[in-house]
Amino acid sequence: RIDGERLWDSLMRMAEIGATPRGGVRRLALSAEDAQGRERFRDWCEALGLSVRVDSMGNMFARREGRDPGRAPVLFGSHLDSQPSGGKFDGALGVLAGLEVMRTLRDLDIATEAPLELVNWTDEEGSRFGRSLMGSGVWAGVYPEGEILAARDAGGVSVGEALDGIGARGPHPAAPFPADAYFELHIEQGPILEREAKAVGVVTGAQAQVWWDARVTGQDSHAGTTPPSARRDALVCAARIVDLVDRMMRARGEDGRGTVGFLQVEPNSRNVVPGEARFSVEFRHPATAEMERLAAEFPREADAIARGCGVELELQELFRFPHQAFDAGCVDLVRQAAARLGFPAREIVSGAGHDAVYVSRRVPTAMIFTPCKDGLSHNEAESILPEEAEAGCQVLFEAVLARANR
Amino acid sequence: RIDGERLWDSLMRMAEIGATPRGGVRRLALSAEDAQGRERFRDWCEALGLSVRVDSMGNMFARREGRDPGRAPVLFGSHLDSQPSGGKFDGALGVLAGLEVMRTLRDLDIATEAPLELVNWTDEEGSRFGRSLMGSGVWAGVYPEGEILAARDAGGVSVGEALDGIGARGPHPAAPFPADAYFELHIEQGPILEREAKAVGVVTGAQAQVWWDARVTGQDSHAGTTPPSARRDALVCAARIVDLVDRMMRARGEDGRGTVGFLQVEPNSRNVVPGEARFSVEFRHPATAEMERLAAEFPREADAIARGCGVELELQELFRFPHQAFDAGCVDLVRQAAARLGFPAREIVSGAGHDAVYVSRRVPTAMIFTPCKDGLSHNEAESILPEEAEAGCQVLFEAVLARANR
Ligand SMILES: NC(=O)NCCC(=O)O
Ligand SMILES: NC(=O)NCCC(=O)O
Repeated sequence: RIDGERLWDSLMRMAEIGATPRGGVRRLALSAEDAQGRERFRDWCEALGLSVRVDSMGNMFARREGRDPGRAPVLFGSHLDSQPSGGKFDGALGVLAGLEVMRTLRDLDIATEAPLELVNWTDEEGSRFGRSLMGSGVWAGVYPEGEILAARDAGGVSVGEALDGIGARGPHPAAPFPADAYFELHIEQGPILEREAKAVGVVTGAQAQVWWDARVTGQDSHAGTTPPSARRDALVCAARIVDLVDRMMRARGEDGRGTVGFLQVEPNSRNVVPGEARFSVEFRHPATAEMERLAAEFPREADAIARGCGVELELQELFRFPHQAFDAGCVDLVRQAAARLGFPAREIVSGAGHDAVYVSRRVPTAMIFTPCKDGLSHNEAESILPEEAEAGCQVLFEAVLARANR
Repeated sequence: RIDGERLWDSLMRMAEIGATPRGGVRRLALSAEDAQGRERFRDWCEALGLSVRVDSMGNMFARREGRDPGRAPVLFGSHLDSQPSGGKFDGALGVLAGLEVMRTLRDLDIATEAPLELVNWTDEEGSRFGRSLMGSGVWAGVYPEGEILAARDAGGVSVGEALDGIGARGPHPAAPFPADAYFELHIEQGPILEREAKAVGVVTGAQAQVWWDARVTGQDSHAGTTPPSARRDALVCAARIVDLVDRMMRARGEDGRGTVGFLQVEPNSRNVVPGEARFSVEFRHPATAEMERLAAEFPREADAIARGCGVELELQELFRFPHQAFDAGCVDLVRQAAARLGFPAREIVSGAGHDAVYVSRRVPTAMIFTPCKDGLSHNEAESILPEEAEAGCQVLFEAVLARANR
């Protein structure tokens, strides 16, 4: 049995790093706070006798040897980076539950057949550099490493500079190595498990997504003297595109997702007609075909809006992935563990992206979800109960053990 | 005759302070750059033997005594602060042309009957603290000084803190004193004079304005898991209001002005449904009644949009002023000077607000406009010709002299 209190204590200690006044965390990927989180994680792993390996994307692998040196490791973990105003559990739960699995194995003096590796993936959130699942994406060969290292945040800092800035770049190649399986525990970040009073979500896959960076260029001019006919207002165009994204989402009913989460205006002065607006756009849908229809429709409609506003629109597609189904065998291990432990469970498709999505292109993968209060995440008020964390961790423990000893 | 070359040289030297790579200036009110601009201006004034007085809002008055100590001074000037990405001439032309008037009087050893005071008003642009014509507005008693000192910029710095931060707060009360007249030379910031090849605009008044701060509060949530029905997206609401402002402007034809120049999103992360949006709204119209209709209609329509989005909208009106007509006698002095000098001139209503608007509530006032390239202002590319500056300065010289010696 894992130790729920010790797990909770580790979660609270990690949440001290980047703690915000409203009870959340701000631990942006490759920031000073992320560096502190990585160090605390490394200390805890080394105190357990695990050997920590870091790759060129800053992904961290803490290894515990198995009885059979010929077997590929069973991986499990998640991410320690957060949203700018994120919660204490998004990502951290999966990493620290993995740590608790390692600690329990040591306490109980259990040796596994296969080696185990606990992973902290770099920049899962994607908030800072525009690609979510960044570290796992490079690892899995989805993103070319050179392109990612050159990507910049809104302040102009590149991924490569940020990695070096906190000394997070390691000597190992960020590339897939033989691994037997990957398990990831995560909060659901949505309302389904809570509504149905299920302790465990057996995640069968993740929905399709497409993300863009958009830039509208008009012309700065004086708000008091520039007549309607002479305006080339970048914000008016961006605003109409924000509305378009919302309408396209709603046209798909409750399964549609369409969001502009980021928008920056230049020069952003009250009495200046805005000359530039940069913003993000994303669509998601459980069905790949529907996401593809959204992805085809959006640039057409947005271009028509820009033409109507007399401004230029540039769209850069950042990534697109189809519905990703997880490995039936791994999913089954999660289902069986939940059943054996007597936890009410249901199958669920992930609304969020997770490192598991890209890892599963290389390694048999499954995920475990646990509920969160009001389904709220990417919010400082994100909240879970200690017994919910404990249940998820126990399922992770059993699934990992079953796989490593099969 | 004023010295056009010396005037141009002073304009270029002032433009060094806060110079931007694209040829503009960034000399935000009460910033370090503004402090440098104020110092250079003071040095130039003191080198001329003018005595410089500063009031509690940082407004600067450089005085040259007249022959008749009993007469109230003739004021002239403008402002040295700029937009975040502003031009070299918006404001600076009026102050440095005033300096050139003072220099010419000394060179020609001319004494005037009335004393003269050259003014640099604090924070005309309003970009930083939300009220344009701030220093002149407090001076004229339009804004209560305590309320203005407590107003904060987007970074949370108050006007009072900013004044003290650069040592710009002076010992004299920011309150109207007896003055005989106020003249302000400014670039038109619009296309009319250039289009009609007029060297001089005889400004008869300024159009009506109303400005608000708006804040929309929804709820941050995960972009991938939050279904359409559960979203409280602050940016979608703000975007619809941006579109509303544009539509309301266009419904008034070419005389309407409606602008959202500033918009800030929280937490401003790509995969987070935005929980908050703060933005500015302003409307202008040459006719007071039409501005009042816009001012009545906007909160109603914006509220309806917010209700439809399931979010909260707060609107704070920052100021509202009617069409301001200038003093017929002073306007006439400008008209006569332009005619005497043989400059093609026309009457014009100002689209922009100017310190002259509030000063004219206390003191007989007139303005002189000169053309600017493509009517472009509040843009780093703002551009005028040396001979245009010279012509405006010569008109200012003659109008001031005529008034001071009448
Ligand atoms: N789990 C999570 O919040 N991931 C961020 C990537 C996404 O937006 O889905
Ligand atoms: N002259 C000028 O640009 N003033 C700024 C205030 C306004 O927006 O009209």
